[in-house]
Amino acid sequence: MEKNRLEAFSDGVIAIIITIMVLELKVPHGSDFASLEPLLPVFLSYVLSFIYVGIYWNNHHHMLQTVQHVKGSILWANLHLLFWLSLFPFVSGWMGENHFAAMPSALYGLVLLMAAIAYSILQRTIIASQGENSLLAKVVGRDVKGKLSSLLYIAGIATAFFSPTLSGLIYAAVACIWFVPDSRIERLIGQNS
Amino acid sequence: MEKNRLEAFSDGVIAIIITIMVLELKVPHGSDFASLEPLLPVFLSYVLSFIYVGIYWNNHHHMLQTVQHVKGSILWANLHLLFWLSLFPFVSGWMGENHFAAMPSALYGLVLLMAAIAYSILQRTIIASQGENSLLAKVVGRDVKGKLSSLLYIAGIATAFFSPTLSGLIYAAVACIWFVPDSRIERLIGQNS
Amino acid sequence: MEKNRLEAFSDGVIAIIITIMVLELKVPHGSDFASLEPLLPVFLSYVLSFIYVGIYWNNHHHMLQTVQHVKGSILWANLHLLFWLSLFPFVSGWMGENHFAAMPSALYGLVLLMAAIAYSILQRTIIASQGENSLLAKVVGRDVKGKLSSLLYIAGIATAFFSPTLSGLIYAAVACIWFVPDSRIERLIGQNS
Amino acid sequence: MEKNRLEAFSDGVIAIIITIMVLELKVPHGSDFASLEPLLPVFLSYVLSFIYVGIYWNNHHHMLQTVQHVKGSILWANLHLLFWLSLFPFVSGWMGENHFAAMPSALYGLVLLMAAIAYSILQRTIIASQGENSLLAKVVGRDVKGKLSSLLYIAGIATAFFSPTLSGLIYAAVACIWFVPDSRIERLIGQNS
Repeated sequence: MEKNRLEAFSDGVIAIIITIMVLELKVPHGSDFASLEPLLPVFLSYVLSFIYVGIYWNNHHHMLQTVQHVKGSILWANLHLLFWLSLFPFVSGWMGENHFAAMPSALYGLVLLMAAIAYSILQRTIIASQGENSLLAKVVGRDVKGKLSSLLYIAGIATAFFSPTLSGLIYAAVACIWFVPDSRIERLIGQNS
Repeated sequence: MEKNRLEAFSDGVIAIIITIMVLELKVPHGSDFASLEPLLPVFLSYVLSFIYVGIYWNNHHHMLQTVQHVKGSILWANLHLLFWLSLFPFVSGWMGENHFAAMPSALYGLVLLMAAIAYSILQRTIIASQGENSLLAKVVGRDVKGKLSSLLYIAGIATAFFSPTLSGLIYAAVACIWFVPDSRIERLIGQNS
Repeated sequence: MEKNRLEAFSDGVIAIIITIMVLELKVPHGSDFASLEPLLPVFLSYVLSFIYVGIYWNNHHHMLQTVQHVKGSILWANLHLLFWLSLFPFVSGWMGENHFAAMPSALYGLVLLMAAIAYSILQRTIIASQGENSLLAKVVGRDVKGKLSSLLYIAGIATAFFSPTLSGLIYAAVACIWFVPDSRIERLIGQNS
Repeated sequence: MEKNRLEAFSDGVIAIIITIMVLELKVPHGSDFASLEPLLPVFLSYVLSFIYVGIYWNNHHHMLQTVQHVKGSILWANLHLLFWLSLFPFVSGWMGENHFAAMPSALYGLVLLMAAIAYSILQRTIIASQGENSLLAKVVGRDVKGKLSSLLYIAGIATAFFSPTLSGLIYAAVACIWFVPDSRIERLIGQNS
C-alpha cells in the first residue's frame, strides 16, 4: 500500500510535467500558417521532451515493480529524480524558443544528465534495500545502457557550444536507445514469479 | 496492478489536459458584460474540446477494461495517444482566439484526426496482445464508427478553408456520434463474466 | 474497479482546479507590503472558491460511497459537474481582480448555480441507477439543503447588481451551510453495513 | 477505501503544487548565460520550496499510515493543510523574484508557519479520532520537533526585516531538521503489527 502511494505521487508529478510542457507552445496571435512557423522549434523540443518523460515514466514503472518495501531513503531518492524531471518544461521551453541555440542546448543536456544520475541513485538505493538477492540488481547488471547515456549526454553538452544541431541529434539518439522499454525486467519478473 | 498504474497515469494526464484548457479562457480586464463577449468563441471552443476529451476518457476507460496484461507496446501506444490529446489545449485555444478562422479550424481537425488514428493504433495493439479470442476485437468489429469519424475529420479539415463554420459543425457532429459511451463493451463484458 | 477510476479521475480534475485557482494570485512586481494590497480581493475570492471546491470534493466523496455500479449515464453526469467546476478558476479570478464588481459577482453566482444543478443531476442519475431501495435516495430525502442553496444562489445573482458585497455574503453563507460534511450518509452507511 | 481517496486527492494536490512552482521559473528571452543569472534566486527559492513540499508529502504519507477510519473532521483538517501548501508557489515566486527581500521573506515564513500549524491541527484531529491508545499519539509524543519548527519560523519572520539572508538560512535549517523522514512511525508500525 505504501508503494501504491509512491507510485501514485510519482505518476501525478510526471503526468503534470508532461502536460505543463505543452504550455510553452504559446497560442500565436495571427491565424495564418506563417504564425505557426516560429513555433516549430518549440514543437520539436516538446516532442523530444515528451518522449524523454515518457521513457522515464516507463522505466520508473518497471523499476518500481521490483520494489516490495518502501524505505525513507527510496522516497527521497525518488523526489530527487522528480526534481530534475520538473526542470524539463523550463529547459525544453528555453531550448525551443531560442531555436536550439548553444547555451540552452547545453543546459538541456545538463538537466538530462542530472536526471540520469538521479535515476541511477534511485536504482542503487532500491538495490541496497533489496539486499544480496536483489531482483533489480540482476536486471540492471553493469548498467551499460545507463553509463553510455551519461557519456552521450556529456558529449551532447560539449558539442552544443560548436554545433547545437549535432547536440540535439545526440539527445535524440539517446532517446532512441531507451525507447525500447526495459524488457529485461518483464522477462525476469516472469521467470521469478 | 500494472494496469492500474497505466490507468492512473492516463487519468492524470487527461485530467490535466481537460483542466489546463480552461486557462485559455483568460480573465478579461474590464468588469462589464461587453468584456466577456470576445471570450465567447474561446468558450465555445472550450466546450467542444471538453466534450471531446470527455469522450476519449470515457472510451479509453471502457477499452482498458478489456485489458488484462499490459505490454511495453501498449504503454507506448498509450503515450502516443496522450501526446495528441496534449495538443488539444493549444489547438482549442488557437481556434477560439481566432474566432474559428480557416487555418486554426483545419489544424484543430488535424489534431482530432491524429488522436483518432492514435486511438485506433492503441486499439489494434491491445487486440494483437489479446490474441485470437480478443474480447476487444469482438466489440470493435469492423470499427465503422472509428473509420467514419476519420473520414469526417478529413472532410472538416478540407471544409475549413472555405467555410470554417461548416467545419466546426462537422466536428460537433462527430462528437455527437461518440457521445453515447461504448455500451457494446459494457454488454459484452456483462455476457462474458 | 470501474468506480475507482471514476473517483481517481474526478479527484484529479478537482485537485487541479483547486490548485490552478491559485495561479490567479499573480506574483506582484514590488516587494513591499503595498504591492500585496491589490491582491487582497483576489485572495478573498480564492479562499471562498477553495472552500466551495473543498465542499464539492467532500460531498462528491460521500455520494460516490453509495455507488456500486457505474453506468455510462453516471460518467457523463459526472463530467457535466466537472465542467462547471472547471469554470471556478475563471469566475473566481474575474471576481477577485475586479474587486467584487457587479457583473463578475453575478457570473460567479451563475457558475455556482450551474454546478449545484449539475450536482443534483448527478445525484438523481445515481439514484435512478440504484432503483427503489436506493441508499442515496434515503440520505438525500427531499434535498432541502440543495434546493435552498439554489434559491440563495439566484438571490445572490440578483443582489449582485445593486450590492455585490451582499451578494458575496450570500455566497459565503451558502458555503457555511454546506461546510458540515454530509454526516447523514456516514450514519446511514454505518447502519446499513 | 475512504482513506485511499483522501490520500489520492492529497497526492494530487501536492503533486500539482510541487510542479506548478516551477512555472515561476519563467523562460528568459535571451539565450546566453547572462540571461539565466536573474533566475538564480528564483531557482534557489524553488529548491527550498520543493524540499519543503517534499517533506510535507513524506510526513503526510507516514502520518496517514496510522489512520484507519477517516472522519469528516479529518477531511477538513486535511483541506486546511492543503490550502496553506497551495500558497507555496505564490510566496516562493515572490521571494525568488525579489531576491529574498525583507517583506517577501517574512511572508514566506508566515506561510511556512501557517502550514506547520495546519499540520499540527491535522495531527491532533487524527489523534482525537483514534482515542486513548492512539498509535500516532505515541509517535508524536510531545512533538518537540513541531514546536521547535514553529518557534524557528517566527524567528525567521522577525529576522527577515533586518537580515533576509539570515531568515533564509533559518528556513533552510528547519528543512534540514525535517529532512530525515519520521522514522519513529516506521519503527512503531513495525513493532505494533
